[in-house]
Amino acid sequence: MTDPSCPLCLPAREQVLWRDDFCRVIQVDEPDYPGYCRVIVNAHLRELTDLDRADQYRLWNVVTAVEVTLRDIVRPDKINLASLGNQVPHLHWHVIPRWHDDAHFPDAIWAPRRRERHARVVTGFVGCDLTPLLQRRLQELLQT
Amino acid sequence: MTDPSCPLCLPAREQVLWRDDFCRVIQVDEPDYPGYCRVIVNAHLRELTDLDRADQYRLWNVVTAVEVTLRDIVRPDKINLASLGNQVPHLHWHVIPRWHDDAHFPDAIWAPRRRERHARVVTGFVGCDLTPLLQRRLQELLQT
Repeated sequence: MTDPSCPLCLPAREQVLWRDDFCRVIQVDEPDYPGYCRVIVNAHLRELTDLDRADQYRLWNVVTAVEVTLRDIVRPDKINLASLGNQVPHLHWHVIPRWHDDAHFPDAIWAPRRRERHARVVTGFVGCDLTPLLQRRLQELLQT
Repeated sequence: MTDPSCPLCLPAREQVLWRDDFCRVIQVDEPDYPGYCRVIVNAHLRELTDLDRADQYRLWNVVTAVEVTLRDIVRPDKINLASLGNQVPHLHWHVIPRWHDDAHFPDAIWAPRRRERHARVVTGFVGCDLTPLLQRRLQELLQT
């Protein structure tokens, strides 16, 4: 189940934090939102309920592990979860750490920007490479 | 676990489609998105992972039942799922039917509007009371 025209089936470049044969967790390069991750199902499926119940739970477990990882490592004021897929209809989840003074708060990150400040500055993550920290925590949570 | 200042703890008016002692499904009055539903956990909790695993699955089962209901009844081009809670930090999920020519497609519904047309017109739901249809399908899916 691969669509050769789909950028999530055949990604050009991804920072993979964790993966198995069912899905992968990637770190999104977005300076406003340090720790922003996506969980991408490997198969080219469109909707959540195109998965059977067992695979829905499997995906859920990974999404919640990413939420716990972000709460532990970047300690945001809020977590945003979303599965939209309007632009790329290949099942994936956004797991987004939010801060009260980030670029869009309290709006969704898809709304117009409210301020210029970057959460990386606000939260003190300047120059900090979060990748190994996220990888280690995810590995701990998902190894069982 | 009720916060008297929270509009989801003490709602003024809601069109409830289904409920139990854990959560409720309400129909959102949004002419652009006929069938738009929210799943609201009754307790005043902030994040998904503030629920234990059993209750996470319980919530997941309701969210996926709403997705199936919308796919069956309003037959959208895409389903959008999101749990944000930036404005009202009380755990709830948006289940939003999307059409290729709706007001915001292919952007998120929180982005600036792209066109004036209402999906209710586009999809032929003018004058149609979806409430009993949604209620019946949800009841079928969640009765077991």
